[in-house]
Amino acid sequence: MKLTIERSALLTSLNHVQSVVERRNTIPILSNILLNARDGYLGLTATDLDIAINDKVAADITTEGSITAPAHLLFEIIRKLPEGSQVELDYKSEDGRIAVRCGHSQFALPCLPHDDFPVMETGELPHNFTLSASVLKRLIDKTRFAISTEETRYYLNGIYLHAADAGGVPVLRAVATDGHRLARVETPIPADAQGMPGIIIPRKAVVEIQKLIDNMDGDVAMSLSDTKICFSFADSLLTTKLIDGTFPDYERVIPAGNDKVLELDGKSFAQAVDRVSTVSTEKTRAIKLTLSDDRITLSATGPDAGSATEEITATYTSGEMEIGFNAKYLLDITGQIEGDNAHFVLADAGSPTIVKDSADDGALYVLMPMRV
Amino acid sequence: MKLTIERSALLTSLNHVQSVVERRNTIPILSNILLNARDGYLGLTATDLDIAINDKVAADITTEGSITAPAHLLFEIIRKLPEGSQVELDYKSEDGRIAVRCGHSQFALPCLPHDDFPVMETGELPHNFTLSASVLKRLIDKTRFAISTEETRYYLNGIYLHAADAGGVPVLRAVATDGHRLARVETPIPADAQGMPGIIIPRKAVVEIQKLIDNMDGDVAMSLSDTKICFSFADSLLTTKLIDGTFPDYERVIPAGNDKVLELDGKSFAQAVDRVSTVSTEKTRAIKLTLSDDRITLSATGPDAGSATEEITATYTSGEMEIGFNAKYLLDITGQIEGDNAHFVLADAGSPTIVKDSADDGALYVLMPMRV
Repeated sequence: MKLTIERSALLTSLNHVQSVVERRNTIPILSNILLNARDGYLGLTATDLDIAINDKVAADITTEGSITAPAHLLFEIIRKLPEGSQVELDYKSEDGRIAVRCGHSQFALPCLPHDDFPVMETGELPHNFTLSASVLKRLIDKTRFAISTEETRYYLNGIYLHAADAGGVPVLRAVATDGHRLARVETPIPADAQGMPGIIIPRKAVVEIQKLIDNMDGDVAMSLSDTKICFSFADSLLTTKLIDGTFPDYERVIPAGNDKVLELDGKSFAQAVDRVSTVSTEKTRAIKLTLSDDRITLSATGPDAGSATEEITATYTSGEMEIGFNAKYLLDITGQIEGDNAHFVLADAGSPTIVKDSADDGALYVLMPMRV
Repeated sequence: MKLTIERSALLTSLNHVQSVVERRNTIPILSNILLNARDGYLGLTATDLDIAINDKVAADITTEGSITAPAHLLFEIIRKLPEGSQVELDYKSEDGRIAVRCGHSQFALPCLPHDDFPVMETGELPHNFTLSASVLKRLIDKTRFAISTEETRYYLNGIYLHAADAGGVPVLRAVATDGHRLARVETPIPADAQGMPGIIIPRKAVVEIQKLIDNMDGDVAMSLSDTKICFSFADSLLTTKLIDGTFPDYERVIPAGNDKVLELDGKSFAQAVDRVSTVSTEKTRAIKLTLSDDRITLSATGPDAGSATEEITATYTSGEMEIGFNAKYLLDITGQIEGDNAHFVLADAGSPTIVKDSADDGALYVLMPMRV
């Protein structure tokens, strides 16, 4: 294998694939990426056996061929090469090492045979549809914060993507919850997706997808079965195993009878929550909201008798009430609000509260209260 | 105590003093700062019993008085208040808490009596002189990297500042070393400083001084005895205990007989060192320099048979030689070079190498070689 490639293009591709590679691996070849030079392109593949990312980048190929090389080391080297330079990659089987050359720099890196590199078998992926990158980005960005990190509830460690019915309109829904808060974001479903099974995309794949989709225009093609999903981006392909579990019936968590509507400026509210919660203990971050006519008072008390209160104006006419929240969870949700206004729909101090975004009808958040 | 103060001015002062305060304290009042409202100013003092920082900021004082309040909590609250706002601080002894008010926000923080706040006794400080802020900054910035972190060699855990003789010229010298590398930076000594004892300024004080001096013009007044030093900045006063120990005779470490002169472009060299050392093991970061006529070859080998070489041009005519260094130490030193050129003065592969800066005659670095 021998080729010349632009340093910046190679760096972008390595950046796409290398973050899948774990820092420590018991199987040595999983520390490597597969390099595959063919038909005017260098293909790069990395995997942790659960996720595989393929990227391809135009290259000037002298000799076609394949080899695997240490992912992080190669990435670090290419990163440190001068901007605007050309890089030569050269592997001859008699050397047993891959040469990386650029200007007066020359590196020889240990290799492992490409035949040993684990290929992720996708099997048949019967469901195929396309979403615009911006729609997929919205589904992920607005739900990711609520993914659970509790490993014992492994079926909550991802985003649940599924076809659903929203008052007679068929939608594609992304849902994530950790039991304390829930995020549900939906979009009109592509016709091809209507028969898809509900799937749980694991957190690590979600992070990688966010990276690949960032600043991307155009469409993303998705193919899935009930065990795997494959995302096709412009020059990248991400395949991931799905979480093998049943996502709980989240609809039961979303209260239907809440009737107290509170409308307020999301940004000012978030700043006030942040300020007032400064005195709360690090652990609970508890904050109390006292609602009265067109006014809401935030308050918190801390250890050693510290306390804080702040009053903000709001639109509210449903009678006095008090309710407590974890300030961090409240900030996570207000951080998703794009519109000027956040709508809270409350029942009482012991029941979950619904939060909606004035600028996004398809996004809904549920927040459990806490005793304060 | 009652006063009104600009949020941004208070934040700057809190930022100056609060970093001295340790996160965990067995003596509760050490978590607090002393607030002292008098004569149109709010004075702020923080201490960890080794260092004390006093800051003062103009305030509109209604009632003079003193109290102590939690340093980090107060800093966090002021930081989160809106830009451009005015803050009211109000302490009445009958409340037992200090009120912080701003717009619709109100905080009450636990207090401790000002009488219990430990005052650092400086004793007599017989040696007094002045340095321009830029000169003091240079002495500190160029030596700090070499301060040892080994606690058993406590006398190396700071910068040694002393009067010395540089070939008949009296100078003020800053020296730091960790046994692997040494930095020695000097400046013409102010007449008043000639009789000063050699003192070791501890690392934590060095960091605080760097913060206070950053972006500052004008002069810094210094007063010292052989156990304490006090720095007067524009609106801040830093007093620190000195390290009670004897700094080793560093002159013995600086070789006098080195005769092989290597001159090279510091920036390109540093980039090459960084690139080539990528393949070295994390632990040793070993890199080999092979010197030949007007050319220097950098090379490194790593675990698993990785290797790297790079050639750069240099001015050198003293015969072939090889010498190994820790790449990190080499980068620390080349990072101090301001001029276009770094001058290396070498003896052999087993002896310390001298590095000088073409733009700064008063700075000298010594680097121990390593076997490669």
